[in-house]
Amino acid sequence: MEKVLTSEKEEIIDNNLKYTLFSWQKQAGIKPLVIDRAEGVYIWDKSGKRILDFSSQLVNVNIGHGHPAVADAVLKQMQEVSYVYPGMVTKARGELAKKLAAVAPGILTKTFFTLGGAEAIENAIKMARLVTGRHKIVTLYQSYHGATYGAMTAGGDPRKLPSDSQQMPNVVHVENPYFYRDPWHSATPEECGERAAEHFERVVGYEGPGNIAAVIMEGESGSSGCIKYPQGYLKKVKTICEKHGILFIADEVMSGFGRTGKWFGIQHHDVEPDMLCFAKGVTSGYLPLGGLMVTGEIARNFDDKPLPLGLTYSAHPVSCAAGSAVMDVYENEGLIENAARMGEYLESRVEELMQQHPSIGDFRNTGLLGCLELVKNRETKEPMAPWNANAAEMAIMNQVQAKLSELGMYTMVRWNFIFIAPPLTITEAQIDEGLEMISEALKIADAYCY
Amino acid sequence: MEKVLTSEKEEIIDNNLKYTLFSWQKQAGIKPLVIDRAEGVYIWDKSGKRILDFSSQLVNVNIGHGHPAVADAVLKQMQEVSYVYPGMVTKARGELAKKLAAVAPGILTKTFFTLGGAEAIENAIKMARLVTGRHKIVTLYQSYHGATYGAMTAGGDPRKLPSDSQQMPNVVHVENPYFYRDPWHSATPEECGERAAEHFERVVGYEGPGNIAAVIMEGESGSSGCIKYPQGYLKKVKTICEKHGILFIADEVMSGFGRTGKWFGIQHHDVEPDMLCFAKGVTSGYLPLGGLMVTGEIARNFDDKPLPLGLTYSAHPVSCAAGSAVMDVYENEGLIENAARMGEYLESRVEELMQQHPSIGDFRNTGLLGCLELVKNRETKEPMAPWNANAAEMAIMNQVQAKLSELGMYTMVRWNFIFIAPPLTITEAQIDEGLEMISEALKIADAYCY
Repeated sequence: MEKVLTSEKEEIIDNNLKYTLFSWQKQAGIKPLVIDRAEGVYIWDKSGKRILDFSSQLVNVNIGHGHPAVADAVLKQMQEVSYVYPGMVTKARGELAKKLAAVAPGILTKTFFTLGGAEAIENAIKMARLVTGRHKIVTLYQSYHGATYGAMTAGGDPRKLPSDSQQMPNVVHVENPYFYRDPWHSATPEECGERAAEHFERVVGYEGPGNIAAVIMEGESGSSGCIKYPQGYLKKVKTICEKHGILFIADEVMSGFGRTGKWFGIQHHDVEPDMLCFAKGVTSGYLPLGGLMVTGEIARNFDDKPLPLGLTYSAHPVSCAAGSAVMDVYENEGLIENAARMGEYLESRVEELMQQHPSIGDFRNTGLLGCLELVKNRETKEPMAPWNANAAEMAIMNQVQAKLSELGMYTMVRWNFIFIAPPLTITEAQIDEGLEMISEALKIADAYCY
Repeated sequence: MEKVLTSEKEEIIDNNLKYTLFSWQKQAGIKPLVIDRAEGVYIWDKSGKRILDFSSQLVNVNIGHGHPAVADAVLKQMQEVSYVYPGMVTKARGELAKKLAAVAPGILTKTFFTLGGAEAIENAIKMARLVTGRHKIVTLYQSYHGATYGAMTAGGDPRKLPSDSQQMPNVVHVENPYFYRDPWHSATPEECGERAAEHFERVVGYEGPGNIAAVIMEGESGSSGCIKYPQGYLKKVKTICEKHGILFIADEVMSGFGRTGKWFGIQHHDVEPDMLCFAKGVTSGYLPLGGLMVTGEIARNFDDKPLPLGLTYSAHPVSCAAGSAVMDVYENEGLIENAARMGEYLESRVEELMQQHPSIGDFRNTGLLGCLELVKNRETKEPMAPWNANAAEMAIMNQVQAKLSELGMYTMVRWNFIFIAPPLTITEAQIDEGLEMISEALKIADAYCY
């Protein structure tokens, strides 16, 4: 006998559990929130509970929820034309690409639009191999670049390990300049950056510089724990790349569009990438869109021979219209400047928090791309949960996360990381509100400190 | 000095050429159509020219252009919430998945939503390998499954050849049951199907049945030339799969959602797939969406261990709302029945056309998924352009395509194939209108017949 559905909310949950699969989790015992509406930094579930979104969902809803300008632009585009294949053009596609070229670092001028970050990376890898005639790709172990076979292989995130055996060949990983847990036991972040660059250069030598098509690195590290690049590191990597004709691809999927207080994360590092992958913030998640920006020089390789890249929804007209509207919101509402200001405020407030909570081992932040790293002891730096923790090892962190949910916060928690990456519209008062919840939840972690 | 822009149209073209890359073509000399609006089977460019869309763009705009119900559903969803991460749920996600389960072949019940077809295939491959613990994937040479590294490798389409050297390992391709150019020189389509199944079975044996995770085949062949499966072929393939515990994955990206006169192409073949990939028709292209459907048995593998699949825009709320609205349009407007009826009408009209045009070597069609194969001679079957034709070899076909454009038609032309796959809303009069244009353009091809 079918369960009698007592409310709309139950029917929604029932349909979702019965007919859909949920990513990155066990399917048994899922109790999903049913979303009623969302505005700014808040979302409300069907039972009326208000939830502070302290990680902009998956670090993508940069302009905050429910901005009417995006819905307006989408409706307008749909009334004109919803879809034409990528060989036909619309106004929004050209406008968005022009706006992107105006803010992109260096001399990136041309955009190949995709649907998301993974496809942007896939196409960047293909294009780098085509342009250089080389096959190897070098990336960082602690990085994430998406979940399709090529992008997954490029990343070092353990989410790829269950699908490990059949990865794309010829990806080489190097160690991160992770000063808090420094592989090279350096005295300063700068020294860590130098040694990491030397490690990178040695690996490039071992692998054969003439075999390496490209290096892919995040503009600023994101879901791997905001492992900030020491100043100078990326610049050194880029110099080594230039010496050997290796292309530098910036993955700005998470770090782009004001997230770090500048348009793109790489702009903190005085490096001009040869290619740039984006997604997330370009539409703030309102509709799916991603893309790959390249220099005119790279684009010219395909003037007289076909560009062997494509997908049905390259430059989707409605997604482009949404992106174009979102770009205006960043500009008109000064969100990138606000992200920089609120980032500074956040840092000063977290400094205070660190006085109260021994479980905070480290806080790394750029603009509003931040992450608390929890430890059981500041001397030993034993993590509150290890990298790629299993269910048992997540017990403490799961309690912390449950407390945050109970207090009315949604934010990304991975292993011993609590992410702080709210919408760029956030105010000081809202940061205070969120940090109070985090402070309350950290008491649970503190109790496990020795 | 910047060129003075004389009109909105020129500015749109200028922005698009200057700032965006176009897929699958040379970047020099592109003269894109600028789209003004679209309705039903027609689109209008900015100069006011009306264009009959005879391939539903990329065989995805199944419900025709400009249906207001989709824009309404999109706006409603965006006013509620545009984006939440896939761990939170909305009404539309569950509703759409329920509607899909109701029409899917066999016992497919659970959907993992992606953004497009390529990602659906990527996730199907990963899941098949996870569930079976095997590594090999078997597919057809003349097939297309998307352009990310995994999906590209799965396909046999030559679009992958420029990126050939770094493909995903362990994909094995077999020959198609292509009766018009039969590898096994059979007397009848049925015999061709039998011999193709024997070929498939031998290859499975050579590769080691216990090493094969899955077979991926289109529900009906699409962009490779609508190479119809002889009756019985897929059934035999499925039986061989069952014998060896190999999963059968139907790629219904192009053949799904009424395109063939049934909900899914595979429903013409009395085969119940273990997984089904979809995209395109699910939203008719109005917004990006794709997905992977699996049986309850397969889904249960991930009840107690995490499903290691995911993407930021899995089950995007707005895309799901669009899909749910499009599903209602199929039902309420009887489009699948109309596709079947119009398919029969199309076939009878093309039979007449074949009397007049010696250049039509073959016409293969299922519902409204059809394709003319042009030849220089019906005896020798010399193609009007060879498989994977280069620019010089496309000279005649390019003339044919240019004539079609001049007459006011857009349709997919590949090598010696002209696709006929209009929106499922098409009428007899509109089919006549299109076939008249094709008849006119075929005179160019006829002149090259010997």
